[in-house]
Amino acid sequence: MALTYLLDILGTLVFAVSGAFRAVKYELDFLGVLVLAVATGVGGGILRDILIGSVPPAAFRDETYLFVCLLGGLLVFLAAPKIARRWDLVMAADAVGLGVFSAIGAAKAAEFHLGPLGIVMMSVLTATGGGVIRDILVSEIPAVIRVDFYATAALCGGLCFLAAGLAGLGETLQLFSSILVATGLRLVAMIYRINLPRV
Amino acid sequence: MALTYLLDILGTLVFAVSGAFRAVKYELDFLGVLVLAVATGVGGGILRDILIGSVPPAAFRDETYLFVCLLGGLLVFLAAPKIARRWDLVMAADAVGLGVFSAIGAAKAAEFHLGPLGIVMMSVLTATGGGVIRDILVSEIPAVIRVDFYATAALCGGLCFLAAGLAGLGETLQLFSSILVATGLRLVAMIYRINLPRV
Amino acid sequence: MALTYLLDILGTLVFAVSGAFRAVKYELDFLGVLVLAVATGVGGGILRDILIGSVPPAAFRDETYLFVCLLGGLLVFLAAPKIARRWDLVMAADAVGLGVFSAIGAAKAAEFHLGPLGIVMMSVLTATGGGVIRDILVSEIPAVIRVDFYATAALCGGLCFLAAGLAGLGETLQLFSSILVATGLRLVAMIYRINLPRV
Repeated sequence: MALTYLLDILGTLVFAVSGAFRAVKYELDFLGVLVLAVATGVGGGILRDILIGSVPPAAFRDETYLFVCLLGGLLVFLAAPKIARRWDLVMAADAVGLGVFSAIGAAKAAEFHLGPLGIVMMSVLTATGGGVIRDILVSEIPAVIRVDFYATAALCGGLCFLAAGLAGLGETLQLFSSILVATGLRLVAMIYRINLPRV
Repeated sequence: MALTYLLDILGTLVFAVSGAFRAVKYELDFLGVLVLAVATGVGGGILRDILIGSVPPAAFRDETYLFVCLLGGLLVFLAAPKIARRWDLVMAADAVGLGVFSAIGAAKAAEFHLGPLGIVMMSVLTATGGGVIRDILVSEIPAVIRVDFYATAALCGGLCFLAAGLAGLGETLQLFSSILVATGLRLVAMIYRINLPRV
Repeated sequence: MALTYLLDILGTLVFAVSGAFRAVKYELDFLGVLVLAVATGVGGGILRDILIGSVPPAAFRDETYLFVCLLGGLLVFLAAPKIARRWDLVMAADAVGLGVFSAIGAAKAAEFHLGPLGIVMMSVLTATGGGVIRDILVSEIPAVIRVDFYATAALCGGLCFLAAGLAGLGETLQLFSSILVATGLRLVAMIYRINLPRV
């Protein structure tokens, strides 16, 4: 589980960086950068914890997450152009974060006895909630419901968690198989620019 | 109470359909349609349950609600033009949903010992919260606070629930009188296009 | 604590007035004015209570807050031009509300055993959450993350609460010192139009 924790921290950092960049794009001030970093980094997990009734949310019980978000905001504030130049690395790390958040969301929902639909929803919500809050705060339609093969990857991660559970695998294998599926699908979609059909 | 449950399911389905149509209007992909269907169908009830401290929310304890939302999204995805042609029926069903959600919101708030103002607020929130989330997700000002005699009908439903309680009626009569009041007022307002005064 | 309660009520009233004015600006109807008054007046405290797990939120346990919000909305609906003429008084009262909400948010977070970062965040969230909800409801980027030295004043109030606690002061002194710091900084910033740096 130590590896899961490290990946979770990495995911939080990358999501915080993505939030901070949005703040820079909208020319928000220093505090705005920090607020968007925190909201994007831990927003999904907080939404999940409130919905399943696990309060105070994990992000307030282990403040490492908040520190990591502030660090991400600070990094962007100090070195936005340098980070932007290696955006491919940020996107790859973002795919890892997506997978980890999706798997952790599913595991936590299962722990709180949610049904299969609830587990998949918490998987998607944990992975995408931070980004949705980020986009709402700057008054955009959330990217995740607009075009991208992003929430779908998280959803497949949640489904994989369920399937691995039905197949009798232990929780560690459930977690890692769903991280692999969600992160893998996201990377493939990024490379081949896959999208879902529309009406 | 079996009738209330059926009406609740009907309301959830209609609200999900209204959310899914918004997604189609904004040309969201298939998952966007499902997300807006779920958020609109169960969003109001989830907001209410979080606010009164009834977690996990009802929608996660009885997954029928989530299934019905996905069904609504799927129906719109497959048959949007056919549904649009009978929009009058959708609007009438929506008025029923409004009344049922308003009554159930009031009853649940009373069960959790909220005061009269809290009961009326939960009445309005349950009936309109899903629509507010839907509109925020597509970055519109919520229709409900803009022009329509919609929240007002839900509010009158909540007041009726209170009045019926003060008059000593049992919970079943409280529920049905407030459904009648809210749905009736909404239908009348739809027919005569009634709006509230502005500054 | 009676003084804190009175200041809390004053803050709620002023925030409700600010929400109601936004509704008037967007030409919402009477119910829209009330909704924005309530959401802005008690929204920050409700968000805080949900996040720390204190449900139902304080605003539903003591309905005075809701009544005060409705009163604020009614005042604006009836006398918007008169209130607008004394906007300097409204802004001064708003600075008091900011300080009180910041201090109460910190105290309540400490009571629920949040860590130092959590305490500062709840300080900012209580003071600014209502305004953020108000701005999201009318589809604007929240003022607080855009340009103003507003959240920063709340943040300094939270930091002062922590520092006073570390210095061994009792809770009453913690509360009043952080009210003084946050309200004072906000007033100074309003007079000298101070803003934070941007990228």
